[in-house]
Amino acid sequence: MTPSPRSVRVAIVGASGYSGEELVRLLLRHPHADLVAVTSRQSAGQTIAQVFPRFAMHPVARSLKFSDPDTSALARDAEVVFLALPHGVAAEYAIPLLRGGCRVIDLSADFRLSSAATYKEFYAHDHPAPELLSESVYGLPEVHGAAIRGARLVASPGCYPTSILLPTLPLLRDGLIRSTGIIADSMSGVSGAGRKAEVDYLFCECNESVRPYGVPKHRHLSEIEEQLSAAAGSAVVLQFTPHLIPVNRGILTTLYLAPSRPITTPEEVAALGADISASYTRAYAGAPFVRLLEGKALPDTKNVVGTNLLEIAWRLDPRTGRLVVMSAEDNILKGASGQAVQSLNLMCGFPETAGLT
Amino acid sequence: MTPSPRSVRVAIVGASGYSGEELVRLLLRHPHADLVAVTSRQSAGQTIAQVFPRFAMHPVARSLKFSDPDTSALARDAEVVFLALPHGVAAEYAIPLLRGGCRVIDLSADFRLSSAATYKEFYAHDHPAPELLSESVYGLPEVHGAAIRGARLVASPGCYPTSILLPTLPLLRDGLIRSTGIIADSMSGVSGAGRKAEVDYLFCECNESVRPYGVPKHRHLSEIEEQLSAAAGSAVVLQFTPHLIPVNRGILTTLYLAPSRPITTPEEVAALGADISASYTRAYAGAPFVRLLEGKALPDTKNVVGTNLLEIAWRLDPRTGRLVVMSAEDNILKGASGQAVQSLNLMCGFPETAGLT
Amino acid sequence: MTPSPRSVRVAIVGASGYSGEELVRLLLRHPHADLVAVTSRQSAGQTIAQVFPRFAMHPVARSLKFSDPDTSALARDAEVVFLALPHGVAAEYAIPLLRGGCRVIDLSADFRLSSAATYKEFYAHDHPAPELLSESVYGLPEVHGAAIRGARLVASPGCYPTSILLPTLPLLRDGLIRSTGIIADSMSGVSGAGRKAEVDYLFCECNESVRPYGVPKHRHLSEIEEQLSAAAGSAVVLQFTPHLIPVNRGILTTLYLAPSRPITTPEEVAALGADISASYTRAYAGAPFVRLLEGKALPDTKNVVGTNLLEIAWRLDPRTGRLVVMSAEDNILKGASGQAVQSLNLMCGFPETAGLT
Amino acid sequence: MTPSPRSVRVAIVGASGYSGEELVRLLLRHPHADLVAVTSRQSAGQTIAQVFPRFAMHPVARSLKFSDPDTSALARDAEVVFLALPHGVAAEYAIPLLRGGCRVIDLSADFRLSSAATYKEFYAHDHPAPELLSESVYGLPEVHGAAIRGARLVASPGCYPTSILLPTLPLLRDGLIRSTGIIADSMSGVSGAGRKAEVDYLFCECNESVRPYGVPKHRHLSEIEEQLSAAAGSAVVLQFTPHLIPVNRGILTTLYLAPSRPITTPEEVAALGADISASYTRAYAGAPFVRLLEGKALPDTKNVVGTNLLEIAWRLDPRTGRLVVMSAEDNILKGASGQAVQSLNLMCGFPETAGLT
Repeated sequence: MTPSPRSVRVAIVGASGYSGEELVRLLLRHPHADLVAVTSRQSAGQTIAQVFPRFAMHPVARSLKFSDPDTSALARDAEVVFLALPHGVAAEYAIPLLRGGCRVIDLSADFRLSSAATYKEFYAHDHPAPELLSESVYGLPEVHGAAIRGARLVASPGCYPTSILLPTLPLLRDGLIRSTGIIADSMSGVSGAGRKAEVDYLFCECNESVRPYGVPKHRHLSEIEEQLSAAAGSAVVLQFTPHLIPVNRGILTTLYLAPSRPITTPEEVAALGADISASYTRAYAGAPFVRLLEGKALPDTKNVVGTNLLEIAWRLDPRTGRLVVMSAEDNILKGASGQAVQSLNLMCGFPETAGLT
Repeated sequence: MTPSPRSVRVAIVGASGYSGEELVRLLLRHPHADLVAVTSRQSAGQTIAQVFPRFAMHPVARSLKFSDPDTSALARDAEVVFLALPHGVAAEYAIPLLRGGCRVIDLSADFRLSSAATYKEFYAHDHPAPELLSESVYGLPEVHGAAIRGARLVASPGCYPTSILLPTLPLLRDGLIRSTGIIADSMSGVSGAGRKAEVDYLFCECNESVRPYGVPKHRHLSEIEEQLSAAAGSAVVLQFTPHLIPVNRGILTTLYLAPSRPITTPEEVAALGADISASYTRAYAGAPFVRLLEGKALPDTKNVVGTNLLEIAWRLDPRTGRLVVMSAEDNILKGASGQAVQSLNLMCGFPETAGLT
Repeated sequence: MTPSPRSVRVAIVGASGYSGEELVRLLLRHPHADLVAVTSRQSAGQTIAQVFPRFAMHPVARSLKFSDPDTSALARDAEVVFLALPHGVAAEYAIPLLRGGCRVIDLSADFRLSSAATYKEFYAHDHPAPELLSESVYGLPEVHGAAIRGARLVASPGCYPTSILLPTLPLLRDGLIRSTGIIADSMSGVSGAGRKAEVDYLFCECNESVRPYGVPKHRHLSEIEEQLSAAAGSAVVLQFTPHLIPVNRGILTTLYLAPSRPITTPEEVAALGADISASYTRAYAGAPFVRLLEGKALPDTKNVVGTNLLEIAWRLDPRTGRLVVMSAEDNILKGASGQAVQSLNLMCGFPETAGLT
Repeated sequence: MTPSPRSVRVAIVGASGYSGEELVRLLLRHPHADLVAVTSRQSAGQTIAQVFPRFAMHPVARSLKFSDPDTSALARDAEVVFLALPHGVAAEYAIPLLRGGCRVIDLSADFRLSSAATYKEFYAHDHPAPELLSESVYGLPEVHGAAIRGARLVASPGCYPTSILLPTLPLLRDGLIRSTGIIADSMSGVSGAGRKAEVDYLFCECNESVRPYGVPKHRHLSEIEEQLSAAAGSAVVLQFTPHLIPVNRGILTTLYLAPSRPITTPEEVAALGADISASYTRAYAGAPFVRLLEGKALPDTKNVVGTNLLEIAWRLDPRTGRLVVMSAEDNILKGASGQAVQSLNLMCGFPETAGLT
């Protein structure tokens, strides 16, 4: 029997949005994390229990107060700091926190790209800390687990990228699909837009509505294409269309992929199917949060909401010669805060599922 | 000033489902239609107002009772009969009604295909009235208006096909897109599943859920491909993925199309864009129910639900070389009952928008 | 055959909220109203069709532009002006518009009370135009129809008051219930909160949530109590609890009333039941927008949403000696804009249902 | 340090409905329970993971198969058996299971009343096991904790009763409210209707709808009145109106109560308020699952859904002389399965919150 791991002191900067709130929930109940600070300008001075009554049963929620963000105090009190801040702002905190000796898990887009130029193309401002881009690790544990373990700075992926990358990367790495013509069509719950007081996200504007947005050049394309290109060994350009649907949580992504071999005959279909199945199994047999659906099952967000799981199902279509892959995840858990805690677990040597089951 | 058109006597067979109920609503307020019979085995003996209290203000709703379906009585009393029945069943009624002198507008899939063999491939039973397939007209008024005017038997299209065909057909006819590699990704409200007591469509199974279904060979593919092939002049095979989302009504379809010309340079993008715009204008300038969105606007089902409109927007993506087209409609109106009434208007020489604005 | 009524020129001040948008919809299709002006500071310069694409089929929507509110221009161009503005602001427009010769239908709370002191108690600021209070007419057409016909200034009731007053007033006037101990428990859709960018009304804050608010002294109490007191002939104090539920539209109110006679025996129950039924029939037999449910039917907002109807059902409970009355309405139609148009019809001598069926 | 409690072998009969599924979830992760059997005729032969994919991460879910219910096998394998069955059916299983030596926690209404006559009045059939009524304990842990500890047969309360009894019983016991004139107005999510394939509970019939039902004599009245009467020491008759609202989970109850003392002056209001506060604190200071809201906070189902908590807030209204109390709970957790597990914990000497936080 191994000794139980020691605890790590953690803090959350920007804990009043949906991702921040979920981080609070996960870290309050995490067996090896001590939540020592939560910051939010608007909630400063109130306890966690006052701001989020649903956590009131937890003693730390009743005693720990939100504070104004102070990087010196954070660096003194915490070993690992989660940043749940808008892009551009996150980097301002990462720099002094890293300098102060903290390890940082950033949920914004600030450190997900390796190129400051690509950042500027997609985010329309200069990168605030380009010197950190070479060090930061893209926090997709199923893909970059080894690097995450040793990282000082983890850039936790966005919700759409996670739902697209996990189903696509193994097939691309194994050469089972072509690197051209990839299409990702996604539907996201409204929490993805954050807790912002904007008319577009009012109940009556979202309920009984479905709409595309950000067509054809959504910001998340940049990180997805960088990861796909790395797996393919050549530049990948993605077609991506996000849609907003009236659910609180959940992303469903449908991917249209071109097999690298013909699937005209039943034998070809069977052979490629076996290879796809093997590729996924190889990639995710040991991954506790990826579920490969079997038989006739197709993903449904209601089966993963509230969990850190990502479900994958696929169908070969001999009529069109195409491979259709579908995935479902909780955009705030596997798509944001749950995945960030999964990285924490790797960084600290905890069991990968600690606090996430 | 032209004389106001005379009225036509109409009946609805199978008026207790969602499409049937909407037909009742539309025909009760139609300025040139007299609703003379509504049938439903389960509601027989009750007035329309008793079954659908929301129509109780209308005097006909308070007096007209549902009856058991009797084709002799229907043929005697009505000039045009709407069939809102399951496929396979509709044909059983169409035969005696046509023989009895009625004109028939069928909302099922029974007469939408020209080939009984294709019908059997997709619907898994022999076609019940193959002799009528050559006569029936596919009831898409913006495309087959002239044929609908003189038709005895109109096969009103399904909800998904309408949302896919109207945005695609002009571009295909005008040679602006290739006929290969077409992908349609659709999201539908739950009313599309009908008023059937099945666990899958319970509130708690659909709310806070999004899921694909019928992948990769949905039945509606057959009629879509037939219509696309006719426009292209060659056999078109479509990739189609429907998804169920938690709204009562509305279909949002995103289409991925391959332009027939490169769009590498800004000039090429501008030139193709002008051609696409001209193609749509040519096709739909006079179409009262197709709205081409301008500027930054993208379709949103909440802007069309409750109307017979279909909205279209499109974007050329020079990064991928692809054309993305998006459409929105009310699946029960433009996708079913509204479109059927639009056909009625053409068949009877009424203004195309009569009863639909 | 009477000559068809002439048309009236109407304008809407504050047309960009939910009630204003619905007024636009109703007045665009009203057979006897010409919409000549719509004002909204934020939308000034855009056409109705640009702001509300769902009305784009209507030629007036494509040509009429929103303007900044200018009372001189409004008084010159319009005969009747609707005010869809916050309380306090509405009065500022009513004064010059009335002086300029317009008739005014105000959807705010500014002119619903006869006492400036009560206004100050409930709205926490001095009444901006107390001299108009004696002239204004409470715009509940089923109750004050005669006064509305001749009114210069109509104060159109709130959504909760309508759902409470119509079921209660006849019984109170006929002495069938006591004037003490009245309780109203209401559930409202989120559109009742208006199109305001506040976190409390974001999709994720309202969806999968039900909550009371404004307990125990909601502002609407003041107008309800004034109307109930007038009917009872003595001061009535009401217990009222509103709740917010995740629907776009609809109010369901459940009223707990004390019959003025015992209902211990079946005979007493039957006799009082007959009197209640007669009271409602007397009050509403000629009212086109009040529907008295029969048999086992209970109100359901989905049966009235999209209509100007209010449904009423009631049950005597011999176990408790109490009368339970339930009502349902569309909060934006019968609870706001539909009712305002109903008043317009009375004021102008149009059929009461013109533009509302 | 106390030794950690041993585990208990538990089984669930009727595990395919919403309450049964939630019991599965709770018992799979319960630190002191071993789930040894789940029964469901329709799912027999499939593993838990196949029927409920969201539990697939748990090894027991992947190995334990649903079986046909067999009371001999259950009595042999399990120490405590949960019955999640319709009323009338539950008793048929309880009898042999008790005889076989099991302890039984029944979630149906079969053992909640002490009188077989009252059962027949409200459930319209003879009680199937009247001899067990004197033994069964009403499973409201905050009220009957001592009896539950030693019980062989626990009748776990319904969802509405829990939301009404916990806020009312302390005030009634302490004589702070009168036992007459109590009114409870409740709103429930659709999962309360169970996973039954009925048209009334289809998505499109519940979404965008709110409706009362079971007025004025809902079955749950019987158990509520029995418990209230016991606390009051005299027969209590309740007015109760349930409403169905479009959320998956959650009950919000608003109670109208008559204080036993006048609250005309501010001093009287303050004094009674202090007594109410003290009464609630006395009753629930040690209750881990009752949260007394403070300050301006009012209950909101979204703050308790997914937890076993019940929230309470109250307001004295000097205008009406009444006390308004509001409560919120998750109807499937504190209103059903969570509460049943809370009883299990008491019965087995586990910490009351085991498996519930």
